[in-house]
Amino acid sequence: MPTIDSNTLCINGDRLWARLMEMARIGATAQGGCNRQALTDLDKAGRDLFVQWCRAAGCGISVDRMGNIFARRAGRDDVLPAVITGSHLDTQPTGGKFDGVYGVLAGLEVIESLNDAGIATEAPLEVVVWTNEEGARFSPAMIGSGVWAGAFELGYGHNRADKLSLTIGEELARIGYLGEAPAEARPLKAAFEVHIEQGPILEAENRQIGVVTGVQGIRWYDLTLTGQPVHAGPTPMTVRRDPFMGLAPILQRLYALAEAHGPWARVTFGDIRAEPGSRNTVPERLVVAVDLRHPEQSVLDELDAAFRHLVEEEATRLGLQSDIREEWHSPAVAFDSRCVDAVQQAVDALGYSHLRMCSGAGHDSVYIARVAPTSMIFVPCEQGISHNEAENAAPEDLEAGANVLLHAMLHMANS
Amino acid sequence: MPTIDSNTLCINGDRLWARLMEMARIGATAQGGCNRQALTDLDKAGRDLFVQWCRAAGCGISVDRMGNIFARRAGRDDVLPAVITGSHLDTQPTGGKFDGVYGVLAGLEVIESLNDAGIATEAPLEVVVWTNEEGARFSPAMIGSGVWAGAFELGYGHNRADKLSLTIGEELARIGYLGEAPAEARPLKAAFEVHIEQGPILEAENRQIGVVTGVQGIRWYDLTLTGQPVHAGPTPMTVRRDPFMGLAPILQRLYALAEAHGPWARVTFGDIRAEPGSRNTVPERLVVAVDLRHPEQSVLDELDAAFRHLVEEEATRLGLQSDIREEWHSPAVAFDSRCVDAVQQAVDALGYSHLRMCSGAGHDSVYIARVAPTSMIFVPCEQGISHNEAENAAPEDLEAGANVLLHAMLHMANS
Repeated sequence: MPTIDSNTLCINGDRLWARLMEMARIGATAQGGCNRQALTDLDKAGRDLFVQWCRAAGCGISVDRMGNIFARRAGRDDVLPAVITGSHLDTQPTGGKFDGVYGVLAGLEVIESLNDAGIATEAPLEVVVWTNEEGARFSPAMIGSGVWAGAFELGYGHNRADKLSLTIGEELARIGYLGEAPAEARPLKAAFEVHIEQGPILEAENRQIGVVTGVQGIRWYDLTLTGQPVHAGPTPMTVRRDPFMGLAPILQRLYALAEAHGPWARVTFGDIRAEPGSRNTVPERLVVAVDLRHPEQSVLDELDAAFRHLVEEEATRLGLQSDIREEWHSPAVAFDSRCVDAVQQAVDALGYSHLRMCSGAGHDSVYIARVAPTSMIFVPCEQGISHNEAENAAPEDLEAGANVLLHAMLHMANS
Repeated sequence: MPTIDSNTLCINGDRLWARLMEMARIGATAQGGCNRQALTDLDKAGRDLFVQWCRAAGCGISVDRMGNIFARRAGRDDVLPAVITGSHLDTQPTGGKFDGVYGVLAGLEVIESLNDAGIATEAPLEVVVWTNEEGARFSPAMIGSGVWAGAFELGYGHNRADKLSLTIGEELARIGYLGEAPAEARPLKAAFEVHIEQGPILEAENRQIGVVTGVQGIRWYDLTLTGQPVHAGPTPMTVRRDPFMGLAPILQRLYALAEAHGPWARVTFGDIRAEPGSRNTVPERLVVAVDLRHPEQSVLDELDAAFRHLVEEEATRLGLQSDIREEWHSPAVAFDSRCVDAVQQAVDALGYSHLRMCSGAGHDSVYIARVAPTSMIFVPCEQGISHNEAENAAPEDLEAGANVLLHAMLHMANS
């Protein structure tokens, strides 16, 4: 077994970039982005291209019942649990060229580079394509990795339907990716995912690598404030029970709460609806989508309690009824310390500038972390823009992230 | 000419109530309200019933090109300008039994009572039914009185279409109310309208009559706040340009502005829309319907300026773009002082408790006031509720309002 020299072993950045650009032509949009939604003919074309590249690189391919694709490079001791890496090939309807795709093709590049250098690993390596990460065509997001990790039943996964009532099960069969391998976790040595940050922090701090230590916990709520619908003209301000009068202090107190738990607490109001929504009537009801996040579960729980308390306080003060319905709760994830350390060591050995950080977005790794030692690597993306055709990343950063992935995987596969 | 004795001459409250209840059966809803929208078969039935009652009371009927119905009781000097009163028979889809209808039937009751007492007036009296006051079927509201008063062209009025693309002109012809009289103002001695308050003030103050001195000016705006749509997770709070961060202080400062110009200033946010309206994305844009009202035009103009200033201030502070588009402006109306005095004198003579007040809602009288000496009389309605099947008013209050109308009309017709 050759000695691994961090200063000389590195991936081929030009090949990685060329493949990213070639994949991006499948579903390319006029504005330079990608529309390659899950299980469409375009997604099939992308999967076929990936499989073709993997076979050419000597990998064995298996596809599971959820259409997750595993490309395997044998280890010297091939019965050892594998070290896997991967992400997704599906995109948002007006998505970019890098979200997900980069993680898949960086994994393939790790295998190609090891092939080029003639380096074998003790444990096998695998590159995975997870089905329907985006959740754009089929809800919920991350359903392929979710079923695989046991968060959802296989039947639930198969029955998710798009707007035309086509199901994941039907569409997998149609495009030839309803595989036979069980869609369930098996023992793994480690799992890594490299991804564009989808946020502005690395760029703003001028760092090349994010050593991702965990993923924010997320709570989604529907907040309903109910008052009395009265005519905008004759009704004195002092007798109104106006949900907007309650909304204003609730917004301000929640923003203040996030600030008090800064810099990692996040509060977002993504949507709002007024009922009846008539220009000259005080609304009877406002329904507001609230998204609270924090990387530490105990702080997220604190934010949850404070949110409920302040809403009740303001509603009572203003004679409104309030209701808080939790729509979803994704607990905070702390990544495996050995995997995080492997990434940190690779960064240190390669001499990249870096930041230890949390992921604010959900990723397949959130589910994988439930069943395997897992961590993630971030690289900057331009202005933090993602889920957008303008999504962009610098070739040198993408190369750096893939080099970190290479050495982290090598470390775990040989230790 | 008999001497008019305020203590003995009064309307027949029982007959008024019975007719209100009979009219309410046309389009009666299961919840006790009325659905008799403009120019439907039900509106025709209501108009026919009114015309039948008026003919029985000896009135001459004329219908104009906008379907406005004029029932006329001759004066001793029938070439004198008439004293008119009236309102509308059309209702909201889930309307009540009193809004508009009361003003029409109270006018008829004035004529019936004068007939019963054998009292003639110097000037002729007329009771008017204005077409499509509500604006529920055809937009805009108050189109019949608006055309008549010259605020709109006749062709514009005829071409207003409902959701099925049926026009006012077509529907007037279909139900037999496309009259031949010109839909334009002629000299009038005075115009009165008695109406339920559609607000809670008289009930709260325990007064029976509102002496209405004017109508609030109204400005309708679409306020747009534009920021940057970013992912709810990865984007730090401090770098966001979040329209909701601008909305909160704008709401609070506008409510404070209304309070500072209390008790007559009103600010209402009737509707709001977030774009793209995705739960885990900071909205790019909020569009908010803003309704500002004040009975004095100069104060309304002040509110307008302050609104524009504070929006710009908050938008600049938070890096948002703001746009204020004025959708509609109905200037404040000060009613004719002689008409207001006539109402006040009637109230004093009859000994009713009263309040001098402004109307917060629009009425046909807003347009009539442009071309004739005009004022209004309000009576309380239960909890201020209107445009609602639960709309209710006490028979004794309706009787009191009609008595005030009787004496105000008598005064103007004989002076």
